[in-house]
Formats: sequence, C-alpha cells, structure tokens
Amino acid sequence: MQLGIVGLGRMGANIARRLMRGGHSVVAFDVNSEAVAGLAKEGAKPARSLKELVDLLTPPRAVWVMLPAGKITEDTIDSLAVLMAAGDTVIDGGNTYYKDDIRRAAALRPKSLGYVDVGTSGGIWGLERGYCMMIGGDKDVVERLDPIFATLAPGVGSIEKTTGRDGRDPRVENGYMHCGPAGSGHFVKMVHNGIEYGLMQAYAEGFEILERKKDDKLPEAERFDLDLADVAEVWRRGSVVSSWLLDLTALALAENGKLDNFAGFVDDSGEGRWTIEAAIEEAVPANVLSAALYDRFASRLPQRFADRLLSAMRAKFGGHVEGKLKP
Amino acid sequence: MQLGIVGLGRMGANIARRLMRGGHSVVAFDVNSEAVAGLAKEGAKPARSLKELVDLLTPPRAVWVMLPAGKITEDTIDSLAVLMAAGDTVIDGGNTYYKDDIRRAAALRPKSLGYVDVGTSGGIWGLERGYCMMIGGDKDVVERLDPIFATLAPGVGSIEKTTGRDGRDPRVENGYMHCGPAGSGHFVKMVHNGIEYGLMQAYAEGFEILERKKDDKLPEAERFDLDLADVAEVWRRGSVVSSWLLDLTALALAENGKLDNFAGFVDDSGEGRWTIEAAIEEAVPANVLSAALYDRFASRLPQRFADRLLSAMRAKFGGHVEGKLKP
Amino acid sequence: MQLGIVGLGRMGANIARRLMRGGHSVVAFDVNSEAVAGLAKEGAKPARSLKELVDLLTPPRAVWVMLPAGKITEDTIDSLAVLMAAGDTVIDGGNTYYKDDIRRAAALRPKSLGYVDVGTSGGIWGLERGYCMMIGGDKDVVERLDPIFATLAPGVGSIEKTTGRDGRDPRVENGYMHCGPAGSGHFVKMVHNGIEYGLMQAYAEGFEILERKKDDKLPEAERFDLDLADVAEVWRRGSVVSSWLLDLTALALAENGKLDNFAGFVDDSGEGRWTIEAAIEEAVPANVLSAALYDRFASRLPQRFADRLLSAMRAKFGGHVEGKLKP
Amino acid sequence: MQLGIVGLGRMGANIARRLMRGGHSVVAFDVNSEAVAGLAKEGAKPARSLKELVDLLTPPRAVWVMLPAGKITEDTIDSLAVLMAAGDTVIDGGNTYYKDDIRRAAALRPKSLGYVDVGTSGGIWGLERGYCMMIGGDKDVVERLDPIFATLAPGVGSIEKTTGRDGRDPRVENGYMHCGPAGSGHFVKMVHNGIEYGLMQAYAEGFEILERKKDDKLPEAERFDLDLADVAEVWRRGSVVSSWLLDLTALALAENGKLDNFAGFVDDSGEGRWTIEAAIEEAVPANVLSAALYDRFASRLPQRFADRLLSAMRAKFGGHVEGKLKP
Repeated sequence: MQLGIVGLGRMGANIARRLMRGGHSVVAFDVNSEAVAGLAKEGAKPARSLKELVDLLTPPRAVWVMLPAGKITEDTIDSLAVLMAAGDTVIDGGNTYYKDDIRRAAALRPKSLGYVDVGTSGGIWGLERGYCMMIGGDKDVVERLDPIFATLAPGVGSIEKTTGRDGRDPRVENGYMHCGPAGSGHFVKMVHNGIEYGLMQAYAEGFEILERKKDDKLPEAERFDLDLADVAEVWRRGSVVSSWLLDLTALALAENGKLDNFAGFVDDSGEGRWTIEAAIEEAVPANVLSAALYDRFASRLPQRFADRLLSAMRAKFGGHVEGKLKP
Repeated sequence: MQLGIVGLGRMGANIARRLMRGGHSVVAFDVNSEAVAGLAKEGAKPARSLKELVDLLTPPRAVWVMLPAGKITEDTIDSLAVLMAAGDTVIDGGNTYYKDDIRRAAALRPKSLGYVDVGTSGGIWGLERGYCMMIGGDKDVVERLDPIFATLAPGVGSIEKTTGRDGRDPRVENGYMHCGPAGSGHFVKMVHNGIEYGLMQAYAEGFEILERKKDDKLPEAERFDLDLADVAEVWRRGSVVSSWLLDLTALALAENGKLDNFAGFVDDSGEGRWTIEAAIEEAVPANVLSAALYDRFASRLPQRFADRLLSAMRAKFGGHVEGKLKP
Repeated sequence: MQLGIVGLGRMGANIARRLMRGGHSVVAFDVNSEAVAGLAKEGAKPARSLKELVDLLTPPRAVWVMLPAGKITEDTIDSLAVLMAAGDTVIDGGNTYYKDDIRRAAALRPKSLGYVDVGTSGGIWGLERGYCMMIGGDKDVVERLDPIFATLAPGVGSIEKTTGRDGRDPRVENGYMHCGPAGSGHFVKMVHNGIEYGLMQAYAEGFEILERKKDDKLPEAERFDLDLADVAEVWRRGSVVSSWLLDLTALALAENGKLDNFAGFVDDSGEGRWTIEAAIEEAVPANVLSAALYDRFASRLPQRFADRLLSAMRAKFGGHVEGKLKP
Repeated sequence: MQLGIVGLGRMGANIARRLMRGGHSVVAFDVNSEAVAGLAKEGAKPARSLKELVDLLTPPRAVWVMLPAGKITEDTIDSLAVLMAAGDTVIDGGNTYYKDDIRRAAALRPKSLGYVDVGTSGGIWGLERGYCMMIGGDKDVVERLDPIFATLAPGVGSIEKTTGRDGRDPRVENGYMHCGPAGSGHFVKMVHNGIEYGLMQAYAEGFEILERKKDDKLPEAERFDLDLADVAEVWRRGSVVSSWLLDLTALALAENGKLDNFAGFVDDSGEGRWTIEAAIEEAVPANVLSAALYDRFASRLPQRFADRLLSAMRAKFGGHVEGKLKP
C-alpha cells in the first residue's frame, strides 16, 4: 500500500527502504532535501513540503512521522492535522511520551483523523532484521495499516515457537503487536527501554566485577586475569544469561577487550526517565531500573557536589582527609 | 574417556546421560542406591561407595562431584583425596564458593592430585541443549579432560558467529572456557548468576510496571490493560531486550498471564550473595545486582521490622496513622 | 499583625494558636463550622465563608491557606483571587507541588496579588517547638509578612550557633528562610522531605539488621539479642548518628521494643515522589532517596507480580520450586 | 582506676586525656616514643614496651588497645595475651570486625583473660563531648571497668530525657551500653557506621538536587539559585531532618558554600562494608545502606569499565555516539 514518510534520518530512511523492498509505495519528505533526493533514487516519490506530501497521497492517507520526540514531532503533526482530511491517519513512529499520544489522539478524533503510535525497536539492525513494533490506536485504523506493519516486522524467522500460544493473535509472533488504545504502543516501548537499561547495567556491573578481579589490591591468590571477550562468548552458548545484548557485548569485546575505544559517558533518552515516572505513579518499586538510569547520570558527571559534601562532613566529624582518585 | 560421577541428582544424572550418549564411560555413585541403580540401567557402571568408585576407575582417574555446595561437597572431596592417587583429578561441578576452590586446590597439590572447578549453567535444559561450562584449574589437567567438556558443551550449534574471533581459543565457541587457575571457573559462574539476578529483576520490574498500568487509581484515560504474554512474545522478535530469559517469560505468561500459579517467594543461592561480596572487596559499585538480590530477600519477608520502624517514626513526628495493605 | 487562615486542621489550627499567643490577630475559616467555632473560643475572629473572611480583613490582606495539596487548595486560591484586591497576598502553607506555585504566582501577578509559598516542617510538635519555614515569593511581600514568620518560627533557642555565619541573613538562625522566588519555598521543603525519607530508611535498615541478628539461622556464636531501645538511646549521646528522628526512634522503642503496635504499611506523600522527579530532571543520581521511596511502596504491596515473575522464570530454567514465606 | 593504653594516635591520646582529667591513672605505650613522651608530660606514666606497660600495671590489669583494626591490633593482643595473667583484661577500642572479637574472646577464655570490645563513636569531638560507647564482653568484666566507661561517656548532659525509660539500665542515658557478649559492641558500632553512611548519603543527594536546581538546562522559570548554607542552617531549627550531621553540614557550607575546598573522593572504612555483609547473612534488604557505600566507591573511580561497556553496547545496537563529560 501507499505510505507517506516524514523524517529521513537513519530510522526513517531504513523504514522507507524496507517498505519499498516489500513492494509498498513511499512518498517521502524531509527538511533536508538531499535526504529526499537520495531516497528518490531508491524509488521513493519525493515531496518538497508537507503539503506536497499530503497532496501526493491518495485518501485515506497514512503518514508515518519519524522525527525526534518533542517539539519538531509535535509541530509536524499539528501541520499534518491541518493538511489532512477526515479518514486520514497520522502515525508517530518516534520515541514520543505516551501521554502526548493520548492527548493528540483525543485532539484529532473530532476531525475524524486517526492517530497511531508505534514504538519501534531494532535500531540500526532493523533494515535487515525487521523492526519489533508496539502499536497503539483504534482497532480499525491499526488493521487497515496491517500491510505496512507486516512488512516492517521481522516475521516468525527461525526463532523457536513459544508453546501455548494457539489461538492467540498471530501478528505477535511476526513481531508486531496492537497493544491497545493510543499511547499504549509508546508506553510498552517506553518500558521496553527501561528494561533495556536494567539489562545493560546488570551486564555492565557483572563485567566490571570480572575486570577488576585482577586488581593488585586483592590478595594475590585471589586475583584472576580473565579474558572478558571469551567470557561473553562462552555465555552465549547454553547459559541462562544469553541474549542479544550479550551477543553485542561479545562482539565489542572481541574487537577491543579493554573497551578503551570508549570513554564511558553514557547518554540516556526520555524513555528511561519516563519509565521511572510511571513506576512512581503506579507505586511500583523499581530499584533496578532506577539504578540503571542513575548510573548513566553519574557516568556523565565529574566529581559530584554530593561527594564533596560527604568529604566535608567526614572532615568535620572525624578530621578525615580525603581519599584520592583511584588510578 | 572414563569418568566417575558422584551425586546423581537432576544435574549429575543428566551430565552422566549426556556423557554416555557421547560415547564416554561413566562410573556412578550416590548415597541414594536407587539413583545408582536407575542410572546403571541406562549404561553406567554402578558403585556402592566412594571407595568402590575409585577402585572401578583406571588411573589417572577423574571424578566429577556434583553435590550441593558446602559440607557434603567438602566431605566428599576430603574422602576422595584419601582414596585417590597422585595424578588423579577431582572435579567440582557444583556451585562452590570460589575461595573454597582456591584453598582445596592448594591442599591437594602436595599430593599431586589435580583439582578442577567447573561452573555449569544450563539447568534442566542442559541434557538437550548442552551445558555452558566455566572451568578453573591447571592447564594440563583441563586439557586432559577436554573430551569430557567437549561432549557436555552445547557446541557451536546454530548461533551466529561473533566476528573478530579468528585466532582465539576455539573451545569458547563450543560453549566451554578455561578461565584460569583453580577457583576462576566458579568465580566466573558466580558473576554469571549475579548478572542473571539482575537481568531477571529488570524484566520483573518492567513487567510489573506494565501490569499495574491498569490500576484504577490512575486517571482513566491513562490506564492500559495490556496482554503481557503478547508483550513478552513480541519482544522476542527483533527487539533489543530479546534473551533466553525472555523466551522463558513468554512461555510462562502464555500458560498463565496472571502468574497466579506462583506465590512470589523467591529463593536465592550463594552465588548472588557472593557476587555482592566480590563487588565490595573490589570496591565496584553494584547497585543493580544488589537490588536484585534484596528484592528476593524482601519477597520472603512478611511485614518488615524496618517498615514498622518507619511507621513508628511517622506516628511520633507527624501523628500519622498507618496506611493499609494494598489489595 | 492581622492574618486570615483558611483550613483549621491540626496544622492550620496550631498555626493560628501560635500566632494568637504571639499577639497576632487571626480571622479563621474552615468548611467545618465546628472547627471555626472552636478556634473562635480561643480568640480567633470566625468567618462563615471565604468572602466573609476577606471582608473581615483590612487591606493589604494576607490569607494563609493551610489545606491538603491539590484540587481543594487550587480551588480555594482561585476563589480568593476573585475576592481579593490589588496589594493583597495569598500564602500557601500546604505541601503544594512547586511548579504549581510558579504557575499560580504568574497568574496572580497581573492582578497585583502577591503569592507566597511556605514549606512548613514541624508536624505536631510545631505549636510548642515552632515551625521551620522555607519561603518563596517576592522580596517585598515576604518582608511585609515578617512578623508572622518571626512568631511561627522556633527562634534561636538553645541550639548551638554555627560559626562563620556573621553577616548572613539573621532570619535563618531563627528558623525561617526566604529561599527565592515563588515555588522555591516548596521546592526546598520537597527536598527536605526527600531527605527525610532517606534518613528514616537508613535507620530502618540499620535497626532491622540489629533486630535480625538474633535469627536462629545464624551460627549460634554469632547471634546477639540486642536491646534496641537501649541502642537508640545510647546513640543519642555523642554518636555521629544522633538526630531528632533518632530521638523519636528511642521514644517509640522505649514504649514497645518489638514495635508490634505497628503493622508496617508506610504511606508516602507527594514530596518524596517529586524529589525523585526533580532528581531525574536534573540528571542527579539519587539511589538512596529512590530506594527509600520504593521501600514504602513495597511495604504496602502484598506478594508482587514482579516476584511471581521471578518464580516463573526460575521454574522454567531450573525447575526450581518456590520458597516459602519467612515466618 | 588504673588503665593501660596502647596506641596514642588522635583517638587513643584523647581517651587517655579524658580519663586523666576524670582522675584515672594512665600507663601509656606507643611505638612512636615521642607520642609517649608527649602524653607523659600531661601526666601519663610512660612505657617503653608492651612488657613494661604490663609490668607497670597492678593486677587485675586492664589494657585498652586503640590501634587500626587488622594485623597490628591482632599482633598486639597476641603479645598482651602472653604477657598478661589470669584475671587481666584486654579492651579493643578500635574498629575491629566483630567476628574477630568473638574468635579472640574464645581464645583468651581458657587463659582466664577477659576480652572486651568497645565500639567508640565521637571522633575528634570526643575529648570534649565524651565518647558514645557500645560494649561487648562478660558482665562481670564490663562492670569492673565501669569507672573507665563512666568517665569517657558524655553523661546525661542537656539532652532531653526519653520518656518511658524508668527502670531501664541507667548507663545507657549516660552514653554507654553493655550490648551483650564479646563482639556485640563492635557489631552495634558497625551498624552505627552503616547507618551513618546512609544518613550522609541522604543529605548529599538532597543537597545536590538543591545545588543543581540552578542548572541552565532547566526551563528558566524553574531554576532557583539557592543559598545552601542557609538551607542547612534553617533545617537545624525545628525541622524533621535536624541532626548532628546537619549541624556539621551547616558549618562546612558556612565556610565554603560551593565546597570547592573538597575534591569529592570519599573513603570508606570496614564497617560500611561489613554492615552489608551482615545484611546479606541475615537476608535483610539494605538498598539504602548499600547505595551509600557504592556511591563512595564510585566517587573514587574514574570513568568506569561498566560505563565503557554501556557505551559499547549502545554503539553496537543503535550506532549511538557517546555523550560528553558534563562540565
């Protein structure tokens, strides 16, 4: 079927490519005209403005917005809402805060404009592996767009079938899920990312414990100089901690076992933060997910005010002189 | 080759079976004579005592002890040390504390007895999938036992190859690793389990945030009644959080989406605790791994003294009356 | 000076009392007419409505709203804004979210109405001890209300003077502080409560470690049956952990060393949650403050879904049967 | 009464001074002969060796060892055990691991030597304020030494009496407590320090949240430039978070509100670590106390391996380029 795509960054362009490979027709727009021209060479119909994009689509239209969450996505959807007609649908495929989806869907409903939020996981591997999609929106709209989702999704592939799923929604095994009303797709994706932070931090702490086991402050008989690339690799085989993140860890460590090609300043995106806010709203204890987020904060801070305050207290009550940076 | 196995619980018996299927010869002993008789029917040579087991083996002997960590393993190894001869080897395949391995290996060395510690992951799936093994001990002894490890390991299977590993130890890709001297195998396995706790807790917190999103204390427009079995399943396909633990989660949720076949009292084993001790010894911050362990402690505690103390303080400074158990 | 007070719950009534004892004149209103009548007997001028309260005050008026944070406070301030005149001031003494203060102050400014937010600590002890106040608002308005704050505050009392404060704002040593513009008072009070949670949890965990040291699962030689009331008391004398919260702990434990007059379901208020949100907005790692909040959540939850999921995973990968509730 | 003191560092020398001021007779030894000579000028009887110290004391002797926990304390007590006679007592006033106390007391018992462990809080303020003491050991020995403890303790002072303590051990209100058998004194002191870490970290996180509220990444209307010295000071007056640690915080911030006289590398001592080990042995969840310890670890680490691993994973799955150090 036909789809408009707004935003041709890495994610948007690859989504367009995977759709075109799957036989769909793509009309593409980006503020960067070179990105549009590039994708036009690969078969997309280029648009020079949002208006032209809308004009080039046959109603009922569907436009997939793939832009950074926040003001630019908001503005784009506002503009589309003016340009589009009853029966058309806006898809937000970015990392939007799910409460914004709920608000937008309610705002578009009186105009009979559909709103679908798609949480998309797969990163730079999605073009080849397919995208795992968590979708929120009205049932009929989501079903009308099914050809798009079916093409973008990974499909059943070679992954072993989970027993006990007979009679369940077959889309799920193909890698996409209609989670519920507007917002629910991004909510599930948000928690997905929250979990992702937790998983990553669990590996990170564990590998650091392995790495520091060679520390010469430990008793000599209790030091081990472990080959971390091999540890990651062996755990990929039959161990309880095998995962895709571990596969990537094995890859990175095979390239550089000390990881000194990285500095260790770790960014975080909205989803990790919003997951904690959701936990607090629901009064769910989330020590692991919070600690994972906080470690990223700490990774980007130099010596902290909090720590200077600890040093100050220790000086005051015990006359303690500060320690030194550990080499 | 020939191997003695002491301890025919689920793990020990399955290890024996996988070895026999692989063409090895097994001499088996357990204090439970029925377990011995059962395995004898499957082809093992039965022993009625440790002494008989040792007598039935041809030097240089190798005896795999697969018993609960602690006194029973310690006593068995002490007895074997008396019965065995120079050049023989004891393998501890249980979940022993790695410092006990270091101590034992040092104690056996003067008698020219080899000591190998094998951290074994794979649980009840190991018989079919093979066991991921982390091995500590002297190089020559570990290499002599290679046929055993090669058979027990999963092998390369269908798992995608990690690029950049050319020239590296090929055993690792087969699912077993010689980590270093005695103790290092169990140390790596210990951290493996520490990470396992962290990964599990990350999923657990995330799924609880999803599950409680239907809570009627939330604003109605922001409630979602999500199908958790489908969420787990869809994340298996192309998402960043795919893992074997997620596969098992999908399986459990497909059987019972409310998980009310479980009460939620979660045991912990020594490895999770020792991982924290190692982190502390090395001065490595391990908030995620600790929080995962503590959640298990909390799951087994009724209303805590700590919480009663919080209530007491609140009553004293603010006249606050306690809240109620949340239904 | 003259002050209107709206809301005669425990806090509001005691604030009125302390002001009247200090020679101020109070006009009081509450939806509960009995509360108004009661306070009238103690010398307050009773009002039967917000309108009457405003009419009874001489411009420039000041009205202290002491109601639960949220809709009722919001509605009351909206009503006052209509009834009051340019030059008048609304004081919110409740536990309002500081961003609401910022919004309200901006909304009242075009009408030349002042807005002051007062974070008030002191609980049920404030009537006698005085209230510690953190104040946000315009400089001139805060200064005009100084007689009120000076009376409500504890004063310098017998607390030892901090050296190095010469030339600093003398109000602070009297127990009240003009923190900055509107919202800053409640922001400082919010963080105060976040810290309070953390302090309480530190004691709670520590005393639980002491309490469980008699557990018969520990080796007999390492068990201690400690008198916790005495521990709390002795720490009040010259130890580093002495504090007012410890004083209250000693009091509670002297009454009932097992604290079995409490069930341990611990409520939390908005401030603890907002503190975490502020930490996340600022990217400040706050593991301790978060963990303190989460423990309160956990105290009110029965067996958690998260824990059932852990049990489910363990059953799947290891065939583990669940543990039992610890008596 | 007469007391031998071994170890004339800041703590040992001040203990000697406070005892001499209280009319006791002190025999003093230190490997640093200048320290001995200095204290001799203040009235102590100098000893040039452990043997001379023992010879100078009248049986039944009592020797207070005030040395760093570990080998030097262990060796000194071993030497004293040889030099002393039945009926004599060794007091370990340092920060010894309580399991070492249990072991030592058991070893000295056959020789009829008493062993008393004294956890001592009060730091550099103890000489003037008195020392809060947590004492483990046999009842008769502890009672015989009572004059020593009574002098060292702060006494009731001006601290408000806790109601409900009638009939309880009066020593406690004077600031010393006989906690139980050998080891229990240091155990209670250990948990005291664990709590201390938690309290300090709660303040540290809270003040950092206040401090970063001026961050120009926040919306302008929501930034506050708070005077932290005043915040600490105002909270000393009638607020729930008042404490001695807060008094010291107010002092430090009055001197330097940015605390840039400190670098923020925060040492930790054994007690914080042992407290976590005790929590784990007892299966007590201790998220706050652990997080406090881990923050100190993190304060001394440069960019962590754990964080480099996070960056590596993010690069692999999402092509993410690392963030930068936050100025």
